[in-house]
Amino acid sequence: MNFKMVFNVLGKLLLVEAALLCLPLALGLLYGEETYLSFLIPIVSLLFVGMPALFLKPKDTAIYEKEGFVIVAFAWVIMSAIGALPFVISGAIPNYIDAFFESVSGFTTTGSSILNDIEALPKSILFWRSFTNWIGGMGVLVFALAIMPEFNSGLMHAFRAETTGPTSGKLVSKMTFTARILYGIYIALTLIETVFLLAGKMPLFDSICHAMATAGTGGFSIKNASIAAYGSTYIEMVIAVFMFLFGINFNMFYLILIGQFGRIFKNEELRVYFITTVVATIVIAINIVEQCGDFGQAIRYSFFQVTSLGSSTGFVTADYDQWPTLSKIILLCVMSIGGCAGSTGGGLKVSRLIILVKSSYADGRKMVRPRSVITVKSEGQPLQSQVIRNVRNFFVIAVGIVFVCTILISIEGSNGDVLTNFTASLSAINNTGPGLGGVGPVQNYSGYSYFAKILLSIVMLAGRLEIFPMLVLFSPTTWKRR
Amino acid sequence: MNFKMVFNVLGKLLLVEAALLCLPLALGLLYGEETYLSFLIPIVSLLFVGMPALFLKPKDTAIYEKEGFVIVAFAWVIMSAIGALPFVISGAIPNYIDAFFESVSGFTTTGSSILNDIEALPKSILFWRSFTNWIGGMGVLVFALAIMPEFNSGLMHAFRAETTGPTSGKLVSKMTFTARILYGIYIALTLIETVFLLAGKMPLFDSICHAMATAGTGGFSIKNASIAAYGSTYIEMVIAVFMFLFGINFNMFYLILIGQFGRIFKNEELRVYFITTVVATIVIAINIVEQCGDFGQAIRYSFFQVTSLGSSTGFVTADYDQWPTLSKIILLCVMSIGGCAGSTGGGLKVSRLIILVKSSYADGRKMVRPRSVITVKSEGQPLQSQVIRNVRNFFVIAVGIVFVCTILISIEGSNGDVLTNFTASLSAINNTGPGLGGVGPVQNYSGYSYFAKILLSIVMLAGRLEIFPMLVLFSPTTWKRR
Repeated sequence: MNFKMVFNVLGKLLLVEAALLCLPLALGLLYGEETYLSFLIPIVSLLFVGMPALFLKPKDTAIYEKEGFVIVAFAWVIMSAIGALPFVISGAIPNYIDAFFESVSGFTTTGSSILNDIEALPKSILFWRSFTNWIGGMGVLVFALAIMPEFNSGLMHAFRAETTGPTSGKLVSKMTFTARILYGIYIALTLIETVFLLAGKMPLFDSICHAMATAGTGGFSIKNASIAAYGSTYIEMVIAVFMFLFGINFNMFYLILIGQFGRIFKNEELRVYFITTVVATIVIAINIVEQCGDFGQAIRYSFFQVTSLGSSTGFVTADYDQWPTLSKIILLCVMSIGGCAGSTGGGLKVSRLIILVKSSYADGRKMVRPRSVITVKSEGQPLQSQVIRNVRNFFVIAVGIVFVCTILISIEGSNGDVLTNFTASLSAINNTGPGLGGVGPVQNYSGYSYFAKILLSIVMLAGRLEIFPMLVLFSPTTWKRR
Repeated sequence: MNFKMVFNVLGKLLLVEAALLCLPLALGLLYGEETYLSFLIPIVSLLFVGMPALFLKPKDTAIYEKEGFVIVAFAWVIMSAIGALPFVISGAIPNYIDAFFESVSGFTTTGSSILNDIEALPKSILFWRSFTNWIGGMGVLVFALAIMPEFNSGLMHAFRAETTGPTSGKLVSKMTFTARILYGIYIALTLIETVFLLAGKMPLFDSICHAMATAGTGGFSIKNASIAAYGSTYIEMVIAVFMFLFGINFNMFYLILIGQFGRIFKNEELRVYFITTVVATIVIAINIVEQCGDFGQAIRYSFFQVTSLGSSTGFVTADYDQWPTLSKIILLCVMSIGGCAGSTGGGLKVSRLIILVKSSYADGRKMVRPRSVITVKSEGQPLQSQVIRNVRNFFVIAVGIVFVCTILISIEGSNGDVLTNFTASLSAINNTGPGLGGVGPVQNYSGYSYFAKILLSIVMLAGRLEIFPMLVLFSPTTWKRR
């Protein structure tokens, strides 16, 4: 382990977070809220701890896989730990573990909350909550790469660990430019959504917060009733469409920018994501039409909930826990599949699903005809067996984590029934937010014990970082000096 | 496809089933029941259809993987379809689909029932029910191999498909002898259990039926209250121990016979199976001690339910659906893990779990240190990457089947809630029997629609035959002439 280099990078990341915290600080001052200390204390602490990193110049600047994983894992844990401070200091969430859960849930873009009355919070705190969704969506290391070109050489592995999906490619040859393009698209889409929401007569503050929470597919709303509070079909449809868009691989938006529309239509993952969304929406609409009165309303609720859980955002406009079994199961499925690779969405990712299905089919054929040669293709390219192996391994570990997490949070009898604990774990690893039963759409996570909240926080981080960086953190071999 | 050879083997299997049906026929006559037609009609039909196979002498006797799969899949479907006839003709289960479900559940050793009043049935029918558990446990093709040596050369692939676990080895060089040794051990253990049950004052008929249902890890009881009906700790403990034993790889019993005790203690799978059972029993006992009054009672109920679900038998002595969440989750986990490879138990199999955990750990290490060489070992031998690939593929497909089955049986709104449908699917693929909620230990499957019953039957068959033979049956390429 190159500890010096790890400290160096982490120190700079702390300074980035200090800079980010200035935004809610300014907002609080603007609104005349007495929250300035809630942000100032973390900012000063971050500067104090992070500044020395600027002067620490390691001779050996090499960062390998292990360092990349450790940096990403630590960056996210520290970022969340410090991001919880404004909640505690402002008194919004007096208990630190609760605040940590909320902060992790924000940065990992899960959107699970322990708050019973969101609307009682000061605006600067509400902004910070939604802002964590936005920062976490694209990733803080990607942000650091975009603004600090000196990271370029070393942070490839960290970049890989922070972006989602089975394989990560650069858009352009230079990492810094890739990161800038990604953030450029991200900011542009967020602004466009804000404008659309304003057009629907949503107040400016609400529009910005909800646009940020949509962009990161986080799902922190500033209303207790989430998006249902506005009772506007227009607003719901705008957010639903943007939730769907933020679940798309950002490479697709880049392809639009450079005018290569053909490649978009050829993209297999996008096609499957689109078809899944349409089919799930229609099936659920048919399934709930009796409850909703007419088909239009059914489509309205179905489309919103499907794009929300499918993109792992977690906004709600209906208590889907009251829907028929079929609808609930389908929602659990789209939640588990999640968005596309390279999007801000969570879950398994559509591309992994495609690889799992295709490779299982190929292996099945091979069992019957052992002498045949079958190549599994993805996006027109033959898949390396190592990629298949990694994807299957990812799936196995993810299922394992869900089961172990369900067992562990069930140890305390106060923590909910089988379905509640299972869907809470599933929702945590998929970074969705709501589940079923006790963690259903109109419930929250305040009923869980502190142990369960810490455990779910770890699982949320594992879900956001696609498991391996968190596992590395717990491995003893990581901590040996080289 | 070598259709002639497939017909030849299947024809002979029909004759085997005709022979097996003579046992309940004789029993019915002995007890003076009016059920003789219920067995005679199927027997005559089987002879009529099966006899020509004896005269069909294919020139080409080669059986490859594909034929092996097709034979096994067809054998089990036909066997179940005909095994349902006695239920229908006797009037025990008037509807054929219900009877087919019960028959599939019997042969696949699942033990799920649609009967509301088991005790109302004639004894010969009750015997046939338990007998299907026994036949299905070790497998009808293995039985055919044991009594018809001429199958020896061709049926290796079919044998592989019918025995459980990631790899199947022969005990001795000749297949026929392997099959005879397996059946010898099977019969001996069944008789020993019968004697033990008789010693606990269980009536002879009950003892035989329960011993057969235990041996196959099926779980069809002849009492409405299952084993709880006897209210005897001794009987419960005898059955619990035998359920555990029948979940062990039969190679272990062979090793005892040939005096190689050392290899038994070295067996990794057995060790994990044992430890899992002990840990689950203790944790659940602690968890339910408050409900049970004292720790002795808690251990009694916990041990029985753990060995029952862990071996995929499905007998019950307590309504574990009323237990705390932790206990229910642990039971779902031991149910999913199942017994050892080469046992009559269902589920994923302990050896597959070991391979999944070890290979995931190895791949995780490899991500951190890409240049290291890590070998995954199982039972002291390095594992081929093809075995790992197959096991992971099996896991992926199994999880996929559970989700798809849950979705499909949820289409009809009458079919139960999320937990009911999910655990019904899980129970079907693992060949366990009971689940939670509407298919809990004191419930049955009579509430399901015909569509759901057919679907669950297919999944039970897929579970028993470890998936691939059933998939081959649905593949269009299988049906091309070569």
